[in-house]
Amino acid sequence: MDEPLRDSRTLAIQLRDRIADLIRGEGLKPGDKLPTEAQLTQRFKISRPALREALKLLEQNGLIYVEHGRGRFVSAISAVHVDRPITVFESVTDMAHHYGYRPLNKVLSIAEETPDKHVAAQLQLTATDRVIRIERLRLQGDEPILYCLDYVPRSIIPARLYDIDWSGSLLSLLEEYKNRPRMSAATVSAVMLPDEVVQRNDLRDFGPALLITETCFNAAGTPVNYAIDYHRGSHFSFSLVRK
Amino acid sequence: MDEPLRDSRTLAIQLRDRIADLIRGEGLKPGDKLPTEAQLTQRFKISRPALREALKLLEQNGLIYVEHGRGRFVSAISAVHVDRPITVFESVTDMAHHYGYRPLNKVLSIAEETPDKHVAAQLQLTATDRVIRIERLRLQGDEPILYCLDYVPRSIIPARLYDIDWSGSLLSLLEEYKNRPRMSAATVSAVMLPDEVVQRNDLRDFGPALLITETCFNAAGTPVNYAIDYHRGSHFSFSLVRK
Repeated sequence: MDEPLRDSRTLAIQLRDRIADLIRGEGLKPGDKLPTEAQLTQRFKISRPALREALKLLEQNGLIYVEHGRGRFVSAISAVHVDRPITVFESVTDMAHHYGYRPLNKVLSIAEETPDKHVAAQLQLTATDRVIRIERLRLQGDEPILYCLDYVPRSIIPARLYDIDWSGSLLSLLEEYKNRPRMSAATVSAVMLPDEVVQRNDLRDFGPALLITETCFNAAGTPVNYAIDYHRGSHFSFSLVRK
Repeated sequence: MDEPLRDSRTLAIQLRDRIADLIRGEGLKPGDKLPTEAQLTQRFKISRPALREALKLLEQNGLIYVEHGRGRFVSAISAVHVDRPITVFESVTDMAHHYGYRPLNKVLSIAEETPDKHVAAQLQLTATDRVIRIERLRLQGDEPILYCLDYVPRSIIPARLYDIDWSGSLLSLLEEYKNRPRMSAATVSAVMLPDEVVQRNDLRDFGPALLITETCFNAAGTPVNYAIDYHRGSHFSFSLVRK
């Protein structure tokens, strides 16, 4: 018995992931036929149009292919696990958990400041707006695995800075303030940590970092967070489908 | 007047990109209304179902949003350029061109060999199958910007190795042999080049690399190429939408 769908993503996307789980869970192989529409609607307790939308997504993602008149089949690409693609928007906390890490989140600094031009542009702020700058390091045991810099418009979190626990998920905090980010526009690159960060925080052994810089938007399309996350290269790699 | 659609991606995906170009080209801003379905079908000379599929993709990508009864609108995320997302499958040659590079492709070595376990698994080969291993360096002026290792099943390219020009696009070559890759399952991480590669090829200054490792599949879902591409961090960054 499958749980009802209830998270905040669209029904089609949730359903797509459920069907992908089903393909893997039941050990379907490339070339195997998918269960029929009737079986799937019954199993997930959803309407046929909702199912078709999800199946269309699976087809677009390359996980299944359609042979007209014959049905839907599992494609070769589905055999290659792309479990948690880089294109899924989630908190750094959730992402780290998924990798099996339970990192300690060490707050290095919190400040209210005037954003520089670049940060202001990303958050669509004017010259008089203020931001909260949150600098954090995540440690797995003794090992630093993530260095994160976040900017949030001050207007979104008007509380006193010292009244807030900054060591939790920023996404959850933004949700409390009715501004949970839903998606982001991101760039990914490979860099060394900035020298200044290395020296101030004793991070000489961090090595190459996968840098993800992203502007995160709430459901209304307003930017609510500009995040700069350095993922320690030796500890993270992301998967994706390209098509 | 727009060109007819004719590349090998699905119509919906091509159309999605055309409409995204239109949004940018005509300077539509977040919150602006999209042209009507009638205007779009006429402009792109396509059917309404095809258009709706493309619009659905744009909605899923977060570029537009729907207000029921009011129409489709440009979302905030569309203002953030995600021009050439990392999720688009394309040749390294095309990708480099898009960044404004016209690199010289230097072939370092070509060999036929028995694949190791990992490569064999990626290409779904058995113990007796052989692969072609292609090692190349791409130089922009004097600067090495890409170090690439490719494996292709020998059975796909049965010609004599020295009869082939390996300095061009491998995708085009595979197309000549009726096995053009259409999509891939990839991982992305940040690494330093392997020591042995650095020393053999004098690449001490390469710095951190964005490593993309991908298994590429032809239209039938058969793996035809396993590619290991080190993108010099100082020269490349990729964009994507996360949702």
